[in-house]
Amino acid sequence: MSASAPAPRNSATIDTAPRQASLEPLQALVATDLERVNHAIVEHMQSPVALIPQLAGHIVAAGGKRLRPMLTLATAGLVGYQGDRHIGLATAVEFIHTATLLHDDVVDESDLRRGQDTANAVWGNQASVLVGDFLFSRAFQLMVADGSLKTLKILADASAIIAEGEVRQLITTNDVETTEAAYLEVIENKTAELFAAAARIGAVVADRPDDEEARLETFGRNLGVAFQLVDDVLDYDAEQAQLGKTVGDDFREGKVTLPVILAYHAGDAEQKAFWHRVIDRLEQTDGDLEHAQALMAEHRTLRASLERARDYAEAARGALDWFAPTTHRTALEELVDFCVERAY
Amino acid sequence: MSASAPAPRNSATIDTAPRQASLEPLQALVATDLERVNHAIVEHMQSPVALIPQLAGHIVAAGGKRLRPMLTLATAGLVGYQGDRHIGLATAVEFIHTATLLHDDVVDESDLRRGQDTANAVWGNQASVLVGDFLFSRAFQLMVADGSLKTLKILADASAIIAEGEVRQLITTNDVETTEAAYLEVIENKTAELFAAAARIGAVVADRPDDEEARLETFGRNLGVAFQLVDDVLDYDAEQAQLGKTVGDDFREGKVTLPVILAYHAGDAEQKAFWHRVIDRLEQTDGDLEHAQALMAEHRTLRASLERARDYAEAARGALDWFAPTTHRTALEELVDFCVERAY
Repeated sequence: MSASAPAPRNSATIDTAPRQASLEPLQALVATDLERVNHAIVEHMQSPVALIPQLAGHIVAAGGKRLRPMLTLATAGLVGYQGDRHIGLATAVEFIHTATLLHDDVVDESDLRRGQDTANAVWGNQASVLVGDFLFSRAFQLMVADGSLKTLKILADASAIIAEGEVRQLITTNDVETTEAAYLEVIENKTAELFAAAARIGAVVADRPDDEEARLETFGRNLGVAFQLVDDVLDYDAEQAQLGKTVGDDFREGKVTLPVILAYHAGDAEQKAFWHRVIDRLEQTDGDLEHAQALMAEHRTLRASLERARDYAEAARGALDWFAPTTHRTALEELVDFCVERAY
Repeated sequence: MSASAPAPRNSATIDTAPRQASLEPLQALVATDLERVNHAIVEHMQSPVALIPQLAGHIVAAGGKRLRPMLTLATAGLVGYQGDRHIGLATAVEFIHTATLLHDDVVDESDLRRGQDTANAVWGNQASVLVGDFLFSRAFQLMVADGSLKTLKILADASAIIAEGEVRQLITTNDVETTEAAYLEVIENKTAELFAAAARIGAVVADRPDDEEARLETFGRNLGVAFQLVDDVLDYDAEQAQLGKTVGDDFREGKVTLPVILAYHAGDAEQKAFWHRVIDRLEQTDGDLEHAQALMAEHRTLRASLERARDYAEAARGALDWFAPTTHRTALEELVDFCVERAY
């Protein structure tokens, strides 16, 4: 946590040190349910074709935070849901996410994810594409078993929009003149849509009124945008290598994210030429990443991107205001803070 | 049609030349419905992301026979269905198939399909993976719009099994000691499962009794296996280049199909060593494909594979026996013959 980090919003009497926001309160609240989801994940990735659970197990075990299924579990808790449907649907949400990751790593030609070899690096692109298809199908089998056309529609719609977002990202890659609006559309599609669906489903299984569904959908969508903005900042943060995410991945792939867009627009002709060379033409040499980071520091674009993330985080918190101030709401608010503060 | 081809089963008084089985009677019967499916395909592949309809349109326009959606349309007609649900569901079936083709071509690193550049050859593997995901999601959106959990279950289950079959195929590739049973499991999963689901859905939308569903499922499954066996034979048939399918694709990829399995098992030590070299190690030089074809001729493995296809075709026809001998049944019987005879 750097010296300049703002005090977390929820903490801090004058005589205690500001406490950094944490995932732990939320994890504690949903621990029992998440254990059931983890069991369901392992159970439903089984197949007589041994390579499938091997490869799926590799990425499932790779230590994701299970943020998306946790959203479903936590929002179900927030609205007082008493049944079991959230378990299978949270599992479906995680399978959709995992399928997307497998296909992403093929598309990005990534060798590392969270500091570990990617599935495509171990088993090849072909197996990753096909096991992704398998997990995607399994997600729909889980939804069918749940038996609600409403949740099927929510997640089928989300899946189509995620795929559109991934294609949008492919198109904006290596195009440093991508507009900020186009970038926001990419991350709303590819990331925020599943956050929104996952959060909304908590209200759907509990058969809550439409306006509660809509508030949780808004919560998830804004959280998702904030989360992705922070992710895109972290990819240029020299101190983040220890997170397991190799810093500079987006740069090396020529992905156009907000820190790049802002630096490009703030740059002079020479700087613009630099961005065209390294991002559009991918002609990169030693020191280019560091120069990119220096330009971002000069124009304060990481900070500006985080400010944007904070705006979305604020909107996410605002959507929770309507709910009674239970431990679930407090934990979800802290989740919002956590998603932004992890950049400090 | 070679001189040695058997007379088509359905034809031929003594004084007329044997007529080769054709798709035309079936195409004529479902023409109006298929026109509606083609419109639905174009309508539902639209997206604000222009690359998606461009790429999807390329493969959709590439001239597939629409066999799978035709199965749904024809079996719906066979059981006297009067509604509209078969249109959307046949479209969903075709989208699942198209998504599979897009991912297949990435997995196989194919440059040509039906004599045209593959989507991955034109737009890259990345776009093909993602547009495949999009079409797969669209398929589920169409099923959700149809509103039946039963058809959703049939096609979600089929999708998972297709993915398993594709992974099985990946595992058997470059392993010439693959058993015949393992090969049959591959093609039952990757090909016959969707034929079975497509044929079954005709009875499902018409709310016909379970045994009719089961008969149509059996019809589709056996037809699918026969179809794939013939496909695998055609890949070694020197006269088939004009079909647009590049002869020798399977060979160059080291795919292990029945003609190879039978030739390997019938071969002496020198021949076995040849198969290990060209299939397992993919060490191929000029003349190897021709030598493979010569070994298949020596051991009559193309003929033996077609005999196997004929057995499955017979089972497919048998499953239709129970239905009244309408024009729909006759056209479906001729479809079975067509699927086998196209190898002559």
